[in-house]
Amino acid sequence: MSDGVFSDEPTRLADTIVRIFADQVGSFTPVTGPGRNRVELVAGADAQDDCAVFRFSGDHELVVGSDYVRGPKFRLYEMGHLDEYDLGHYLVAANVSDIAAMGAKPIGLLSVVRYPPEMTDLVFTRVMEGIRDACALFGCPNVGGDIGGAERLILTASAFGVCPAGGSLLRSGAKPGDVVCLTAPTGLAGAAMAYLRAGVPDASIDQDHLKTALTNWKRPVARVGEGLVLSGSGVVTSCQDTSDGLKATLESIARASGIGIEVHEEAVPVPAAVNAIASHLDLDPLVLVMGDSVDFELVFTAPAEVEESLAERLDFHRIGVVTEQEGVVLVRADGRRTGLPGKAWRHTPDETGDRRT
Amino acid sequence: MSDGVFSDEPTRLADTIVRIFADQVGSFTPVTGPGRNRVELVAGADAQDDCAVFRFSGDHELVVGSDYVRGPKFRLYEMGHLDEYDLGHYLVAANVSDIAAMGAKPIGLLSVVRYPPEMTDLVFTRVMEGIRDACALFGCPNVGGDIGGAERLILTASAFGVCPAGGSLLRSGAKPGDVVCLTAPTGLAGAAMAYLRAGVPDASIDQDHLKTALTNWKRPVARVGEGLVLSGSGVVTSCQDTSDGLKATLESIARASGIGIEVHEEAVPVPAAVNAIASHLDLDPLVLVMGDSVDFELVFTAPAEVEESLAERLDFHRIGVVTEQEGVVLVRADGRRTGLPGKAWRHTPDETGDRRT
Repeated sequence: MSDGVFSDEPTRLADTIVRIFADQVGSFTPVTGPGRNRVELVAGADAQDDCAVFRFSGDHELVVGSDYVRGPKFRLYEMGHLDEYDLGHYLVAANVSDIAAMGAKPIGLLSVVRYPPEMTDLVFTRVMEGIRDACALFGCPNVGGDIGGAERLILTASAFGVCPAGGSLLRSGAKPGDVVCLTAPTGLAGAAMAYLRAGVPDASIDQDHLKTALTNWKRPVARVGEGLVLSGSGVVTSCQDTSDGLKATLESIARASGIGIEVHEEAVPVPAAVNAIASHLDLDPLVLVMGDSVDFELVFTAPAEVEESLAERLDFHRIGVVTEQEGVVLVRADGRRTGLPGKAWRHTPDETGDRRT
Repeated sequence: MSDGVFSDEPTRLADTIVRIFADQVGSFTPVTGPGRNRVELVAGADAQDDCAVFRFSGDHELVVGSDYVRGPKFRLYEMGHLDEYDLGHYLVAANVSDIAAMGAKPIGLLSVVRYPPEMTDLVFTRVMEGIRDACALFGCPNVGGDIGGAERLILTASAFGVCPAGGSLLRSGAKPGDVVCLTAPTGLAGAAMAYLRAGVPDASIDQDHLKTALTNWKRPVARVGEGLVLSGSGVVTSCQDTSDGLKATLESIARASGIGIEVHEEAVPVPAAVNAIASHLDLDPLVLVMGDSVDFELVFTAPAEVEESLAERLDFHRIGVVTEQEGVVLVRADGRRTGLPGKAWRHTPDETGDRRT
């Protein structure tokens, strides 16, 4: 495909969409649950019908969610730190992460890609390739959506997943005495963003640390496998992804479950790259770890007595415990009890500069 | 709620979304198929979890689709002919219509509503009320989505439906000899739009006709019941909604099925209101009936021998027949064979003035 071509919508459907999303029709077998649980893709994106069609057998729960990505109003995209392929990839990761947080197996994604007149076929194809590659990475076919014009690039999607009946992980089941766990350290995405926003590159910062943070932020991974293990264990009482930041996630689980959470400072993992960038920017690393860092890790709660058996099947960090007393507090190394550092989740209507979804 | 309030996203979730979409959790039983086909909503929009959850039993097909609505770049909204409530309503109708066209029963909708800083809580609530009321009208709960800021209002949604395994109606099954049918006359939405675009109101036009056209255009109806009857009949060979216009729909079915369609001019219903507006604007009424009129009627094909028995269960108009020879032709009253009048479906990237989705 040569650059500089502006095809209309039917042409882009026929030449780009059908080509990129062909050969997806097939069957999925959820990795958990009895053998008769089966989902088959009957008509996908390349069918170009009114809707995609999945065929079910057995007793499933269907899990569905939508996430919008800010696209060109995302300041770091405008600054050139992300290209259109990255945005397509990110759109999928954000949507599949919500499915993972429910403990479900992703079975399909609908992507809405509306593009401005100045977007060529080549650039449009880059968006769709980012979507395709991320879908392949997470085992979640792009089964359709809506493409067409708009005055600027608009990206939004819906993802679907299945799990055995009763298997989905909600935010609302945490119980006093439960342990509070995190699948992997957070803060890398937030550190990358803080570094880029600060503006001036600095050779004094360790380049490996910088690369780790930037890569994690550009190519976030939805924790699909981890979510399936958590759901399959049958013991997890609540779960949520950290797409609004660790602090927001803990507060959301506490609120939904009507309980409190005590986070132990010493137990919170801080990646070396986050320490390096925090020191460079003269920030408390915990601000980056707890704040609005979009890492797509999973926070979950489970009874204390199953922690050991869960640890045999999954890597995670126990960062605190569930309390009867409502509210989320940080217990510092010296025993002081404070609020959690970091920005709370408050998307205000004029806050269009970030990529939180 | 008083006007002039600009709450942030968590507040709008808590105060508007939870209030408007509470009490939806319950169960649905698809109207077709064996009794063990059951879908239950376990967690909806008011749960505010990562995703909504439906529980399935029996052998279903899940049907999913997404439609974007142009919102404020829709010229007639900018001209004041539609308000935010209308846009919310329309968003649901457009998405549910795709489910109806598949012959499935709608079970849920995810709505993405991103709003500009200048949109107050009162106006935001109007959007959500339009969504809520349309969801109630079509029996399709709003189970979640994504809200938050953007530099302008962005509306997109995904809808889900179920039907018994093998029951979904694709575009690709039409066979030579089939009759081509339409659930109700088209052209009213296109006529309303053409009239409004012409700009100057004219007292000489019959006000009842005008009202009929405007009402049909402002409050489109997704043909859910009709789709279920068509799917349940087991004889329909293809089906599609007319959301891109009747001409585009016929061409799409012909292309997907690898057949041709002969449309008989005398058989194509032309509403009196369309005739009145066409005459007022000095247009061929068939241009409005066939063109890019967004009416959400259903076009379907079925073997000629079942036409009579279908007619006992559903009102429709037979407008033509399927031919072996590819292409779509209009057979005029005098026997002449021509192409179909009306604009073909070509959303180009700069075409942001209409409401087609």
